Order: sequence, then C-alpha cells, then structure tokens
Amino acid sequence: ALQSDRELMANSKYEYVKEFEIDDRLLPNVYVLVRIDGKGFHKFSAAHEFHKPNDIRALNLMNHAARCVMHELEDILIAFGESDEYSFLFRRSTDLYQRRSAKIVSTVVSLFTSAYVYYWGDYFTDSKRPLYPPVFDGRAVLYPTEVEVKDYFAWRQADTHINNLFNTSFWALVEKGGLSPKAAEVRLSGTDSKEKNEMLFTEFNTNYSKLPAIFRKGSVLLREHLPKDLPRDFIIPTPSEMLSGSTAAAATPSSTFAVTLGAAGSSIKPTHGDNTDEST
Amino acid sequence: ALQSDRELMANSKYEYVKEFEIDDRLLPNVYVLVRIDGKGFHKFSAAHEFHKPNDIRALNLMNHAARCVMHELEDILIAFGESDEYSFLFRRSTDLYQRRSAKIVSTVVSLFTSAYVYYWGDYFTDSKRPLYPPVFDGRAVLYPTEVEVKDYFAWRQADTHINNLFNTSFWALVEKGGLSPKAAEVRLSGTDSKEKNEMLFTEFNTNYSKLPAIFRKGSVLLREHLPKDLPRDFIIPTPSEMLSGSTAAAATPSSTFAVTLGAAGSSIKPTHGDNTDEST
Amino acid sequence: ALQSDRELMANSKYEYVKEFEIDDRLLPNVYVLVRIDGKGFHKFSAAHEFHKPNDIRALNLMNHAARCVMHELEDILIAFGESDEYSFLFRRSTDLYQRRSAKIVSTVVSLFTSAYVYYWGDYFTDSKRPLYPPVFDGRAVLYPTEVEVKDYFAWRQADTHINNLFNTSFWALVEKGGLSPKAAEVRLSGTDSKEKNEMLFTEFNTNYSKLPAIFRKGSVLLREHLPKDLPRDFIIPTPSEMLSGSTAAAATPSSTFAVTLGAAGSSIKPTHGDNTDEST
Amino acid sequence: ALQSDRELMANSKYEYVKEFEIDDRLLPNVYVLVRIDGKGFHKFSAAHEFHKPNDIRALNLMNHAARCVMHELEDILIAFGESDEYSFLFRRSTDLYQRRSAKIVSTVVSLFTSAYVYYWGDYFTDSKRPLYPPVFDGRAVLYPTEVEVKDYFAWRQADTHINNLFNTSFWALVEKGGLSPKAAEVRLSGTDSKEKNEMLFTEFNTNYSKLPAIFRKGSVLLREHLPKDLPRDFIIPTPSEMLSGSTAAAATPSSTFAVTLGAAGSSIKPTHGDNTDEST
Repeated sequence: ALQSDRELMANSKYEYVKEFEIDDRLLPNVYVLVRIDGKGFHKFSAAHEFHKPNDIRALNLMNHAARCVMHELEDILIAFGESDEYSFLFRRSTDLYQRRSAKIVSTVVSLFTSAYVYYWGDYFTDSKRPLYPPVFDGRAVLYPTEVEVKDYFAWRQADTHINNLFNTSFWALVEKGGLSPKAAEVRLSGTDSKEKNEMLFTEFNTNYSKLPAIFRKGSVLLREHLPKDLPRDFIIPTPSEMLSGSTAAAATPSSTFAVTLGAAGSSIKPTHGDNTDEST
Repeated sequence: ALQSDRELMANSKYEYVKEFEIDDRLLPNVYVLVRIDGKGFHKFSAAHEFHKPNDIRALNLMNHAARCVMHELEDILIAFGESDEYSFLFRRSTDLYQRRSAKIVSTVVSLFTSAYVYYWGDYFTDSKRPLYPPVFDGRAVLYPTEVEVKDYFAWRQADTHINNLFNTSFWALVEKGGLSPKAAEVRLSGTDSKEKNEMLFTEFNTNYSKLPAIFRKGSVLLREHLPKDLPRDFIIPTPSEMLSGSTAAAATPSSTFAVTLGAAGSSIKPTHGDNTDEST
Repeated sequence: ALQSDRELMANSKYEYVKEFEIDDRLLPNVYVLVRIDGKGFHKFSAAHEFHKPNDIRALNLMNHAARCVMHELEDILIAFGESDEYSFLFRRSTDLYQRRSAKIVSTVVSLFTSAYVYYWGDYFTDSKRPLYPPVFDGRAVLYPTEVEVKDYFAWRQADTHINNLFNTSFWALVEKGGLSPKAAEVRLSGTDSKEKNEMLFTEFNTNYSKLPAIFRKGSVLLREHLPKDLPRDFIIPTPSEMLSGSTAAAATPSSTFAVTLGAAGSSIKPTHGDNTDEST
Repeated sequence: ALQSDRELMANSKYEYVKEFEIDDRLLPNVYVLVRIDGKGFHKFSAAHEFHKPNDIRALNLMNHAARCVMHELEDILIAFGESDEYSFLFRRSTDLYQRRSAKIVSTVVSLFTSAYVYYWGDYFTDSKRPLYPPVFDGRAVLYPTEVEVKDYFAWRQADTHINNLFNTSFWALVEKGGLSPKAAEVRLSGTDSKEKNEMLFTEFNTNYSKLPAIFRKGSVLLREHLPKDLPRDFIIPTPSEMLSGSTAAAATPSSTFAVTLGAAGSSIKPTHGDNTDEST
C-alpha cells in the first residue's frame, strides 16, 4: 500500500535536503562555555526605567532565568552573571545533544529567554509583561583546561568590577552631583580605580567596598552536592569564595545537586590546586 | 593613571581567553535556512490541553511569533510553519551579524521564544502565561541554489500533509470512533493516503480536502513589496500559491515590505521559472 | 578464541580516540577549489638558478605535475597555474572522498608534490633530483556559483599579468640595464602598466605583448570531451580562449576525457552565457 | 598613475573571492595530531615487490621521510610510524601557521611525500625512482589531554602488533608452508595471538618475540634535549621505552633538539606520572 502513496514518495524525494545539514559536534573532553548577552538592552533598560547604576529587580530576574537553565541542564557546573550577560559552564564530559553546538547554544538561549519573560512579573511587579519581547543571543566557546576556565571567569568578574565602579561613579556625578552625562564622562576620563573610590567616598559619602557584592562582583550559580534525601529543588545560599572552595570539584553526574545562588561575596580567582571538574 | 589600575591590568591579563572563540561565519552567497523546533512539545501540548489533531490557538501563536522574527530580521524572505516547527529563509546575500552562525541562530530562537511567551495570553485567553516556560531549539542549514530551497519547503510541506492526515484519521478513530489509541494505530498501520481519505469520508463524514488549509498545508509568511507610503506594519492576507507567484522575487533590501500571513491556500511546489532570490 | 586476545582488547580499548576526529565534509553542491602554493620558492628558485623573470623548465614541470593531478582525480574540470601556484576546480557535484576537506586537499598536494619531484629530471636535465625536497601547501575554498568561479580565475590571471609585467620590467632593468635591484625597484615604483610597456619597448626593444602567452597569462589545463575510442591518455593542445569555448560545459563523469595543456593564448574572462558546470 | 591601471583595478575588482576562504584555525592549547597514510599502497608495494610481511627498505624510507618532517617543523614532539602510515604530534602550544588546519596538514603531507620520492634511491638502490609517483593523504585530530595522546599511540601500536602478527603468520603459511593465500586466511581465521605465536614457533621455527622490534612495534621518532654546543643535525639512537622515559617532558621551545630514531625496543604505553608536554 505504501508504494502507491504519492505523499510519502514526495517526502522521500525531497529528503536529500537533509544532507546539507553539517555536523557541528564539538570536540570531546573540553569545557563548553555558553555565554548569552542581551540584545539592545541599553534601549530595553531605558524603556523600562531600570534603576541606575544597578537595578536589583533586573539582576534577580537574570539570576532566576539562569537558575532555570541550570535546573534543566544538569551538566552545567557553574554560571556567572553580570548586567545583561550570563555565562554557563558545562562539564567537559557532557554529551548533551551529542555535543551538537547549535542545539546546545539555542537551547540555553531559548530557555533563558523564555524564563526571563515568564518570570518578569515576579520581579517587575507593576506590570505583567515587559513593553516588548526582550532578546538574547549566545555562543559556545571551548576551553581545554581548568586554567582557561578560571581565567575566563576572572575576566568576566574583572569586567564587572570595572564597569560597575565606572557606572557607580558616573551616576553619582549625574544624579547626586548634578553633572550632565557629558560632564560626568569628562570628569571620569583617565581616572583609575583608586581615584574613583576616593571621589565616591569624599564627594558622595559612599564607601564603594560596602556596596552590595552582587553589584560589585556579579552573581555566581554553583551546583552543590547535597544529601540524597534533600528535595531536589532545595536552594541554599552559599558562602563567599565559592569557586575556590569548590564543592563542585566532587560533582558526579549521578549525585543529587541543587542550584545555589551565590552572588553576595563571591570572588572568582584563578587559584591553584583547585578542581572544578570531576575528571581530574 | 591607567597604568596603576590593577583591575584594568587584570582584565587585559585574562583577555586571552577570547582567542578561543572560533570564527563561525557561514559561506557567503548561499541561502541560510534557520529551522526551530519545540522541545518536549508532546508534553507541553498535553499539559495545556491543545485540541487534537490541531489547535488553532497554538498555530496562530506560532505564526504570531514567527511574524515578530520576520519584522525584526529584514533579511528573512519567507517562513514556513507546521505544528511546533518553523523555518526561516534568509536571502543569500544577507550579512546579518557578518553571517556568524551562532549569532544568527540564537537570535532567531530567542526572538521566537520571547514572542511565544509574550503573546501567549492573546491566544490562550484563559491564562496569562503557560504552566511553565516553553523551549525551542534551532539550527542553520546552507543551501547553494534555489532548487534545494524549493525542495526544502516542499519537503516540509509534504511532511505537514503526511502528519496531518495521519493525525486527523487517528483522532477521528479515537474521539469519534471510540477506539483506543493502540487500536487506532493498528487500524491505520499500512494504509495509504487514499485509504485514509476514504475512511474519513465514509466513517466520519469528513471531507479531508475541505479542512482548513492551515492544518493541511501549514503556514507561509512572505515578505511582500508594498507601496512606500503604506505603514510598515501593515499586514495583508495573501492569495494562495504565493511562493509560485513569488512577489518576493522582486524584493530588494531598500524597499518597504510587510510580513504577510498566508496559511490558507498556500502550496509550495518546486516549480521552474520561479525566482525567490533577488540575485538572479 | 578472540575474547582471550589481549591485543585485540587493547586495540578496542583505545579506539575511542577515533571519536575525536571531526567530520570535515564540505557543503554539497558548491564548487570546490583547491589552490596549492610553493613554500619558500623564492629560496628554492634561487638555489636552482631559475631563469628570470620566467623559467620555462620550471613552468613546464609545474604543468606536468598538475596534469598528473588531473589524470588521477577525474572530478577536476579545469586547472590554472602561474609561477609556483596552481588552482584546481572540482565539479560542484563531486563526491570525491565524500567531500572530506582534509582528504581532498592533502591528496591534491601530495600528488602534485610527488609528481614535481618525480619528473624533475625530465625538465632540469642536468640533475636527477633537486638540491633538496621542495614543499607545497594547499587549501580548499568553496564557491557557490559560476560567477565567483570565473572571477576567481580572472583574479588569478590578473595577478599573473601584474606580477609578470613587473618582473619582466625589473629584470630588464637589472640584467640588461645594469641597475641594482634597489635602483630598479625605485625606478618602477608608481609606474602603471602603460609606462612599463613603453619602457620595455623604448629602452629594451621588447614588445611585451609578443612575449610567450604562458608567461603573460599563465597556464590552463582543461578536461576535454574526446571520442570514446581514443586512448584515455591522449593529450592534445587546445586553441586559445578555451574557457570561453568551454568544452568542459558538456563534461559528464561517464565520458572519456583527456587533460589538455592550454597555456599559450588562454584568457580567462568572466563572460556571460558560459557554462563551466554540468549541472546547469 | 595607479588609478589608470586597468589590471590593478581588475585585480581589486575580483579580490572579493578571497572572502570565501573560511577561517580554519584549530582550537588553541590542545594537541594537534597529524596522521598520514599511503594511498593505494597495496598496489604500490606489489608493483615494487616489497618483501613480505615487512620490507626494511620501505620502513627505513618512511622513517627518513618522517625525520625530514620533524627537522623542518620544530613543534613536532614525537612521531610514530607503521607500515605506510605515520603520526606526528605537535606541542599543544604550537602556533605554526596560526594553527590553520589545511596549512598544517598539507605542509606535513607535502614534505613527507617530497622526501619519500627524493630519497627513494637511497633505500631502493637498484632504481633511481619508483615506477610511478606515490601519494599520501593526511588529516589533523585534536586531543585535549595527555591521556588521549598516550591512548592514541597505544592504539596505533596495538594495531601494529595485530597486523604484524597476522601478516607474519600469513606469509609464513604462504611462502614457507606452501598454502594458497585463500587457505592461509582460512587457517588463521579465528585464531588468537597465542595460537599464532605457537604456530610460528612449532611449524616455522620462528620465535615471534625475537623478530626485529621495528616490525613488531613500529618506529618512534622523538625530539631530544641536547647540549647546546652539539650540531643541530646530530642523530643519536635512543634506549627502549623512550616515551615512558620521556625526555620530551623537559622540552622547551628555546632548547636545542635533535630528532632521534627509536624504532628498536620502543613500547608506548599509557603510563601514569609521565609528561609529554612542556606545559604541565
């Protein structure tokens, strides 16, 4: 009967177009890092009147969305967020989607975006949805060793610090100091960290190092080893210096984990003697 | 002053990790096709009690999300949707994101997902959001010539027909005929299109060819050439046989376009003498 | 018995390393162009006292080696050589080595290199082998349409002209004019084609356009359609303007071909209405 | 003057075809392994009456060609050869040709092929060149850690053993035992290593383990640390168990090295505590 089925024949006649799909499997046994970025978030944050220099509602929503990604994709060991950007590190042995690159990246981005829109109203409580749908893009990067992985997170955290110190100083000058944005930029041009710290302290009575760590250092989500009888969704705060403490080191695929929000005092440094991977 | 800035030095010290980002630019001058698929939509459609075999609300939401993608990304010439899947064809000369593959795919997937969640309540009017965030994945495929592009859409539309005829027959047997899913499957096993059509007509008084075209043939979104003084968001219905009619043939990047929903009578066939690309 | 075989077990235990081999198959249905270049041929040509600005022995050896490549790999339609460089165009439908990139490139380069060393003594008759083994490298480039293919060859031939006119002028000034290389370079700096032609004519009594075409325009190897009863190795000279004449247009894999050396008057131009591919 | 130069303008007009060259740089900081294989060497070895099961002239020529590759490319740490195959391991930090894959692979293959033809007469002393030009192909594989690198070489060496034991048994049956090739194959079918060893000992008075190590275990070329005042070309024999002894562990790019032929007693095993890379 099937032989007389015109549609099935048509279908198989056209199926050759599948052969144009290129195999994009990533090299085995290297860390897979997926970084996502908000697209046009300068405009998006202005349209929604995000508080300057940081909006805790927006950061908490980012963290919530990232936690959804980690809950769904169990091979993610750690995630780091700042501003409208989030980085997810997969264990080097992950075989998620046979390591097909587009599949991994698109799933992470879709999951994150979906949760961001879905939980919007839980953080921006005066509106049930944003003014328009927000968009993120993403990419995968491969890192062969722990050294690069640590330096990657150190790089993102240094970036967080630099941006936040500048933004804090800039908005102090604009909102408290009454300078125009232009004048504030001129004032800050060429200043180093120490000078910005002193300006904040002297002129605006702000001790930068006492500002919330989530602003100064970004957010870290860490998969932690939990007793087997704990509920899988149990979320606990983590102490500072998490990555160095590295409970993730003992992580094995068969264990029970919880995703942990550790923004407060986290400091990611390229320490030695650490393990962030089960394979070493 | 900058030289004494520890953080900037740290930042530049770690920046080498950027060199691990591999250039993923797609070959120039070939069509870029991005196909997205719902992940776990069997479960998602069951959880939300989608009507069987088709839920017009779900299809309309898919079409709405796809239209958002086409509005945002002007190099998409045509899109085709069926069930929880959508395909987007970019003009072969597109230089969107310098043709970086991950950037293109992740942006399409994120935009689609974002709109799907965002507009959910406009189609599923008894709930303001789904029970949980839906997820899509995506991939890019390159097609060098028009022949493959047409065969690609012919392939997806043949797939739509085969699936829909089977599903229509299956759910008729289950919901109207009182068969168990198992028994319905056995009953349909080995039947061809003609037999399914006859069964629907004889036993369930259903003329398959009279069912809505959006169910039988999927949905087509086509970018159409519009007079310059029309508002950019103007959406018009298109006649059937759109791809063959191929107003897209005359499309140029500098023109004014509108995204058109053309589900009803569209039939994509690999015809000859057509142009779907501005370059020929 | 096999189960007790320690070595076979060892072998299969280690075989997982094969999974690190990445699939490098090239996109189907696009032209594959392999270009090879001599490595360190400035030094190699000096060591072997190649005649300046052109050594007909070296060019003939290059052409001989390229002809060996075309004899071995039947999917090559045309080849173009200049100086220490050769380009080979595969038909777009080639399935040679399942289009695996490294396999195609390395085979072409190895075949060419092998023939170059092997036939050295037939052209440089006073030595049976070069002073040391010469080396070539290679790469594959994909071209989706005929337009790029023709522009590619036009590009290489324009390059041949520019280099040869400069070199002819340079060596005339040095060898006949008695200038130092430095002075000759200064003299030629900023001159255009017309000025170089006039200088050659006025000062060195050389009509550039009368110099051998193989120097001015490079060499073309073209696969020609031959009567079936001709011996497969039959080599015939071709008239000028070969690519435009385009007997290759009718080429089909099942036909009998001969590789043709067409250096003399060939001129590759991006003409219209030509076919260099069997598929159109 | 240049503006009036038609040829330069033509050249720059066509130069866009360069943009179709895809960036093929390999991931940084992973081992690059290039393996080359003889093409059609079954026929080539028959045509040149290679001795069976091993021809020491052919193996020595392979080793000579591989040594040429190692002399030229200083980032190769170690090479392993068997039959018509050779594997070259580059240090993980190599920046040869900016790690461009096609460039690396094609250069290794060309260099090897060139030397093989060039030095043919030094090993096959009754002919100045082979009957026709031999061809090799090649490919690059990336290995992120030492574990895979050692398992790779263990895999190739296990392969050498299996093949050689079979071939030694097969040719003993054919050349000394008077069996037809067909009958010899039947006789060996299903036998394990122990049975083949016993058969060789009992029936052909051959102690397999006393056969030359170069036949049983393949050839290893190892870059060794030498005193700075030694001539760069100094070649020394190495003791057995070289890879485990791992003088390569101390290799640094700035040191003086010599390429060492170590076929005799070498045994590559995935030992622990070894270093084959300078970076650990």
